Amino acid sequence: MASTEGNKLWGGRFVGDTDPIMERFNASIAYDKRMWDADIRGSKAYVKALEKTKLVTTNEMNQILQGLDQISEEWSKSAFVIKPGDEDIHTANERRLKELIGAPAGKLHTGRSRNDQVVTDMRLWLRDAITTLTDNALQLMSTMVERAAAEIDVLFPGYTHMQRAQPIRWSHWILSHAVALSRDVDRLQEIKKRVNVLPLGSGAIAGTPFDIDRELLRKELEFDGISINSMDATGQRDFVAEFLFWASLCLTHLSKMAEDLMLYSTKEFSFISLSDAYSTGSSLMPQKKNADSLELIRSKAGRVFGSCAGFMMTLKGLPSTYNKDLQEDKEAMFDCYDTVHAVLQVTTGVMSTLKINQSVMQAALSPDMLATDLAYYLVRQGVPFREAHGISGKAVFAAESKNVALNQLTVEDLSALSPLFGSDVSSVWDYSSSVEQYQAPGGTAKSSVSAQVDYLRDWLKKQTQ
Amino acid sequence: MASTEGNKLWGGRFVGDTDPIMERFNASIAYDKRMWDADIRGSKAYVKALEKTKLVTTNEMNQILQGLDQISEEWSKSAFVIKPGDEDIHTANERRLKELIGAPAGKLHTGRSRNDQVVTDMRLWLRDAITTLTDNALQLMSTMVERAAAEIDVLFPGYTHMQRAQPIRWSHWILSHAVALSRDVDRLQEIKKRVNVLPLGSGAIAGTPFDIDRELLRKELEFDGISINSMDATGQRDFVAEFLFWASLCLTHLSKMAEDLMLYSTKEFSFISLSDAYSTGSSLMPQKKNADSLELIRSKAGRVFGSCAGFMMTLKGLPSTYNKDLQEDKEAMFDCYDTVHAVLQVTTGVMSTLKINQSVMQAALSPDMLATDLAYYLVRQGVPFREAHGISGKAVFAAESKNVALNQLTVEDLSALSPLFGSDVSSVWDYSSSVEQYQAPGGTAKSSVSAQVDYLRDWLKKQTQ
Amino acid sequence: MASTEGNKLWGGRFVGDTDPIMERFNASIAYDKRMWDADIRGSKAYVKALEKTKLVTTNEMNQILQGLDQISEEWSKSAFVIKPGDEDIHTANERRLKELIGAPAGKLHTGRSRNDQVVTDMRLWLRDAITTLTDNALQLMSTMVERAAAEIDVLFPGYTHMQRAQPIRWSHWILSHAVALSRDVDRLQEIKKRVNVLPLGSGAIAGTPFDIDRELLRKELEFDGISINSMDATGQRDFVAEFLFWASLCLTHLSKMAEDLMLYSTKEFSFISLSDAYSTGSSLMPQKKNADSLELIRSKAGRVFGSCAGFMMTLKGLPSTYNKDLQEDKEAMFDCYDTVHAVLQVTTGVMSTLKINQSVMQAALSPDMLATDLAYYLVRQGVPFREAHGISGKAVFAAESKNVALNQLTVEDLSALSPLFGSDVSSVWDYSSSVEQYQAPGGTAKSSVSAQVDYLRDWLKKQTQ
Amino acid sequence: MASTEGNKLWGGRFVGDTDPIMERFNASIAYDKRMWDADIRGSKAYVKALEKTKLVTTNEMNQILQGLDQISEEWSKSAFVIKPGDEDIHTANERRLKELIGAPAGKLHTGRSRNDQVVTDMRLWLRDAITTLTDNALQLMSTMVERAAAEIDVLFPGYTHMQRAQPIRWSHWILSHAVALSRDVDRLQEIKKRVNVLPLGSGAIAGTPFDIDRELLRKELEFDGISINSMDATGQRDFVAEFLFWASLCLTHLSKMAEDLMLYSTKEFSFISLSDAYSTGSSLMPQKKNADSLELIRSKAGRVFGSCAGFMMTLKGLPSTYNKDLQEDKEAMFDCYDTVHAVLQVTTGVMSTLKINQSVMQAALSPDMLATDLAYYLVRQGVPFREAHGISGKAVFAAESKNVALNQLTVEDLSALSPLFGSDVSSVWDYSSSVEQYQAPGGTAKSSVSAQVDYLRDWLKKQTQ
Repeated sequence: MASTEGNKLWGGRFVGDTDPIMERFNASIAYDKRMWDADIRGSKAYVKALEKTKLVTTNEMNQILQGLDQISEEWSKSAFVIKPGDEDIHTANERRLKELIGAPAGKLHTGRSRNDQVVTDMRLWLRDAITTLTDNALQLMSTMVERAAAEIDVLFPGYTHMQRAQPIRWSHWILSHAVALSRDVDRLQEIKKRVNVLPLGSGAIAGTPFDIDRELLRKELEFDGISINSMDATGQRDFVAEFLFWASLCLTHLSKMAEDLMLYSTKEFSFISLSDAYSTGSSLMPQKKNADSLELIRSKAGRVFGSCAGFMMTLKGLPSTYNKDLQEDKEAMFDCYDTVHAVLQVTTGVMSTLKINQSVMQAALSPDMLATDLAYYLVRQGVPFREAHGISGKAVFAAESKNVALNQLTVEDLSALSPLFGSDVSSVWDYSSSVEQYQAPGGTAKSSVSAQVDYLRDWLKKQTQ
Repeated sequence: MASTEGNKLWGGRFVGDTDPIMERFNASIAYDKRMWDADIRGSKAYVKALEKTKLVTTNEMNQILQGLDQISEEWSKSAFVIKPGDEDIHTANERRLKELIGAPAGKLHTGRSRNDQVVTDMRLWLRDAITTLTDNALQLMSTMVERAAAEIDVLFPGYTHMQRAQPIRWSHWILSHAVALSRDVDRLQEIKKRVNVLPLGSGAIAGTPFDIDRELLRKELEFDGISINSMDATGQRDFVAEFLFWASLCLTHLSKMAEDLMLYSTKEFSFISLSDAYSTGSSLMPQKKNADSLELIRSKAGRVFGSCAGFMMTLKGLPSTYNKDLQEDKEAMFDCYDTVHAVLQVTTGVMSTLKINQSVMQAALSPDMLATDLAYYLVRQGVPFREAHGISGKAVFAAESKNVALNQLTVEDLSALSPLFGSDVSSVWDYSSSVEQYQAPGGTAKSSVSAQVDYLRDWLKKQTQ
Repeated sequence: MASTEGNKLWGGRFVGDTDPIMERFNASIAYDKRMWDADIRGSKAYVKALEKTKLVTTNEMNQILQGLDQISEEWSKSAFVIKPGDEDIHTANERRLKELIGAPAGKLHTGRSRNDQVVTDMRLWLRDAITTLTDNALQLMSTMVERAAAEIDVLFPGYTHMQRAQPIRWSHWILSHAVALSRDVDRLQEIKKRVNVLPLGSGAIAGTPFDIDRELLRKELEFDGISINSMDATGQRDFVAEFLFWASLCLTHLSKMAEDLMLYSTKEFSFISLSDAYSTGSSLMPQKKNADSLELIRSKAGRVFGSCAGFMMTLKGLPSTYNKDLQEDKEAMFDCYDTVHAVLQVTTGVMSTLKINQSVMQAALSPDMLATDLAYYLVRQGVPFREAHGISGKAVFAAESKNVALNQLTVEDLSALSPLFGSDVSSVWDYSSSVEQYQAPGGTAKSSVSAQVDYLRDWLKKQTQ
Repeated sequence: MASTEGNKLWGGRFVGDTDPIMERFNASIAYDKRMWDADIRGSKAYVKALEKTKLVTTNEMNQILQGLDQISEEWSKSAFVIKPGDEDIHTANERRLKELIGAPAGKLHTGRSRNDQVVTDMRLWLRDAITTLTDNALQLMSTMVERAAAEIDVLFPGYTHMQRAQPIRWSHWILSHAVALSRDVDRLQEIKKRVNVLPLGSGAIAGTPFDIDRELLRKELEFDGISINSMDATGQRDFVAEFLFWASLCLTHLSKMAEDLMLYSTKEFSFISLSDAYSTGSSLMPQKKNADSLELIRSKAGRVFGSCAGFMMTLKGLPSTYNKDLQEDKEAMFDCYDTVHAVLQVTTGVMSTLKINQSVMQAALSPDMLATDLAYYLVRQGVPFREAHGISGKAVFAAESKNVALNQLTVEDLSALSPLFGSDVSSVWDYSSSVEQYQAPGGTAKSSVSAQVDYLRDWLKKQTQ
């Protein structure tokens, strides 16, 4: 009564027993239904543990298991009907179970809390998601490595600071991105290890008061380990935060590759042409062919990092254990998964189908890119590098002044800069020889690039064993 | 053919002329259909400008207008059918127009590009969204201000560093949050001003080559101004970034208020009780009543800032003009709107219906909170504040040592610390008198708080005029 | 004693009465000394208000004012000596004042708290910083506008999606970035308005208990207004958050311009050459000239947004009023100011001194960029745009098939696609005519660009009045 | 000349051959000097590899080694003088080497680039930093584990949603945070593995053209492996990004613990008292004792995540290989290290020295926290949990209606709700028995908590072996 009067006094919107906006605000079923399978698997394991403690009879257990199987079938046939009051997937499944089997359904939640249930579901879901993303990443890497092997003889300019630097192999460029992805896969496996830990049996905060066999639960659900502390188990979302950051770094790598490819596919560079399947036209300009796929790939690094930033901010300063704020975990996790899943596949498509314009690549190599080689010519004759670098710089300047290419300076021109230049300096002006100098591990010589291909093929083989 | 061989060679997934994953990745219709009304309004204005230039006849214009009205009706009745190929709302509406009226539909896009069309749609949509959010914020503020007026006589502890600091009015606390919201509303109006600028007539990049009357477009669509430069008009999304940050700062304010309220609703503080409509129970613990509404409010600051961070990262280092990366703008904008819209309404509900426990609030005031007043007692007799602060600190220590409350020190106890303490020192120990000292503008005295109420009532009145 | 035993028991590092690591962790003097001048100005105003209330005598006030002036001189001559215990600038200045004038110094802090003092200092400091940044931005804009005016006749390719789109004026490109900066300046003035509000007289939380004339303080310190609520005044840092985001959006704009310029300065584009003053060489490759200035400009958008993200996360979920967490405000504010200050000046230098390669720009225009114009040729004869777009697309394809430029298709070739093509179609192939079509406001025609120049010159004039 | 005219025309600030603002903007020596030792160690290894290839003689090598040792000594004695032109630590050290030993210094950089040099330095530096942080984290954990062991018998309320949930052990709470830290340490070791990879010998982009023995370099510098691809090696900063995120997640954990402790140290909770060494007073309020240490700990999560967000944004969309944007890596890395280093030590101090108020903790346990146990009483008699939960909820309501504590309901009161309640229900109302129910792994029973202590002691022992 006082409350009603109060309402009148300060004129807020009418609020009765329930506020439909609050109910929608509070409910997660719209998105957490995606974990229906994990939720059912978790409950099936849990009822087995209950039966072992005698909290449910074998008969009740069987009823529950059959009921859960039926619910699973409904979901997989899109026949499950969400009803008002089903605020989350856990409530929905248990409500349905009760409809199907009656009283024994009320025993399923014994000693369990939504706090340990939801995080068990998430871990089961994410474990599968990680398996899929790993496969996607490996397929992309494999495409890249085989392309690198096939096109190992193609040379083109290597750039630093977006300026032509030194001649390199196109395959060396491809592999530089494949190597980054291999670290992403490594990191994802480390995260999987931490995802794959059983929280069920932690209750709301204090643990489980019944003789629940958590080892049985672990085996049933194929987890690698068991959570150490019930408060931590129900209140931490490290595995989500780690996954979101993993996605951010992985897509940042792909944003880098996409940026390179966009440069290479400008009219001005013209090194590559994207397949039509990954390009789009313009609603206004008939001649346009836009690399939309690459732009979308580049943009998604921002999107997933946004999810990571948002979730970290949500976590900051939260008190221990479960707080409703944690409900932000699921949409972020799902969206990152969907995004990375699509990006990896589209990138694989792009890398499978783009065509290189080898002659343009070759033609883009210019003698000034061998200025370092000119310095090395002197270094090999004992000139300290700093001095040789200076002499080569003067040669670059001399060529610019004469308005000729660096390799068109005469031996006389060069001798004026250093008496050590002889007629054999002409051997410097060979792009193929230049790249072949870089034979140390990691370099752009054919042998080094081949070794990288071999290394990554082996690495890939190990991942899929 | 080379491509097919290529595929075999480097083993990527099969890619034909189209890649369904790429098509889904590229399409925006799933979310941009939300702007159907803005898109139609924009097209209706545009065809009028085309008619004025004679690029369409009056008859064609009327056909197009009627067709667009019919499409509008289909959307509003949820009867519009999205078809394969409708990659975005613009394509969908134009495709439908062609079905309805045939050839003249092909003239609608003359001199227009999706680049200026989409940003026109977004600005129209966001303008309306801002109006709604402004109303929501004003309703919340109004609820708070009237509650403050009604409960102006309630005192309770003011906290700094989460430690009891000085007695204040409960209404002073309420108004401190209302004042923050008034800045949010001010900022939102500034953003609205920049949203409300017409980009249509900017084409893809260079402008419009026909004699399109942009002033006519502006009037038809009720924009306040016209964009200055076509490249900027189509390629900038400042208004989205500003809106996302606005939402972040606004919800950060509400996260602060929610944090206070959560503290006040702990068992230990017990200053307030939330209405059941904004609380939930526990699946495990029968006695629990959780302030889920407040936790959700607090968490959403992270969510919207995540959208802001993600979009800013997407924008960073993008080249000029339209790039497909900008497609990230819409989901971020929609989600922030939905979130803030819900949060403001739920917060209004919470603030309308919570009950205060005045006796507990009063009982939480303790004499040590008047230690500053004790120092001021000396200051009023000419003791420099630094010295008085030191003496009062000693009194606090003396009371702790004697294990009594600060106001239970005898005059003798106090005289030992300073001869200036007389029997009138007892007047210090009155919470009501204490708060009445703070009569300067912005203080917690009744007159000052009343003045704040008046100020905000006036301010609110101005907003809605 | 118990504590010491405790230490032994759980083996933490030894902790006596003080922990030097904690002291350094807590102290802010290393960076907040930068506000020495603001702190002194604030104290000078405050002592005048104290004198008016008779809490200090006129004589004491004069002593304090003289002492503060002397401290000011010490700071400006770098002669101020920070001593152990000076944990922040407020403590340092008051400590020094006491050394200089003795007892009256102890009266300065009467009714004031560090909570209102620090935020007054910050507002004074930031107000000046905003003035400087506004000047920097206006100088950059002015440089850009005048360069645009001087080079208005230069044409070059306009790009969307990093692909050649339509011919535009180079000055149209310049102005597209200048227009973005004009919004930044507008926003900064809005922020300044909110910065320029007096918090002094808010005490720690409850207000000031003495008859402090806040209007006098406002006038002395030249603030535009007075804070409304003491709890909000001391506990909010909106103005810092707004400033950090402002910096982020401004530098995101410059990251976009830098990205364009980096593209234009690649060997492949060769549209511009940076001055040597803004380029650097390579330690390894003698021929390299890297656009380091542009790369640094691009990178700083990330840096400042990082400060914004960090501070927003720090604010999230903080309880009301002053919490020590807010100490993060100053380093973020200072670093953003320094960064934007440098970036704006360096960008001005870059834009003042870069050279354009007009012949390369002109040569980069290619007939396919006029495909839209070819469609418009048909539109002007009544062909619906969608149909004309399709025909022009076929012409592009025909030219590619014949391996000729689009403008080398014969009238016969074109007539085969549409009978409306006549010999006057040759008029389409003129870049200068093409750009002149875009005469509507915001377009790239000379008249439109001139109008933009005029608009911005006027706008700039108004800013500096 | 044209440039000078240009300056006049568009009125930018004067720019001669150099721009001092640009020079400062470009230079990194102010902060990267911190890596002086790593830089020297890297050069010492490198000259040995050069000697092996005969690019320097043994004599030259020895001169260089001696010179480098002398420079090292200068740095360690703070006697190194930075000169104008020393733009970074690499330049400074090489400049000094030349002053000391003359010509041979010019050979040191043969085949090396700043691109591989700087990232070698960073990896060496960060490897050491990680070792220190690991030690700090282990010391904190050890303090917590031993404190948990010592105070294992202390009970207090466990909270979810900031509401009293169930009785738990104080040590269970401590360990929940220690377990989170153990994951942080695990993650840090994974990062260290990826940090500890040699990039030297990658040159600027293409690799090293001389017969540099990278395996020798690896051994000299004690790296675990060698980078796979030279472009990736010089252009990737994954290890920095990973470290920044690691710091963010670690400090987010500590922000959570700090938030709990701040709650517990409010007057209203009064569970703990912080040592004076970690508290501060108020400049205004003599009675205040603020938990500044905890507030600072909480705030730093924002700060380090800001660095992470900023650096990720800087990386987004960067082209391959070295770009000057990467220079943002170092300040972020240093600041995160310094912050985490301080936070871990201060937290150790706080946890070592805080005092618990055991009687207050005990008194805060209330019978309603046993409502779940009341339900379990029925469950143990075969009532389905959902039904038992409902009955217990009614008991809570009945107690509230009668205005008595839950344990003061009579057996008759309870029997009215369920006939299964017998006189033995009184056994429920024992907090010690209640916690002892949670004996499954991870629970709050004494045996479970002891097992956690044992587990963590073992784990700690393994880390330090």
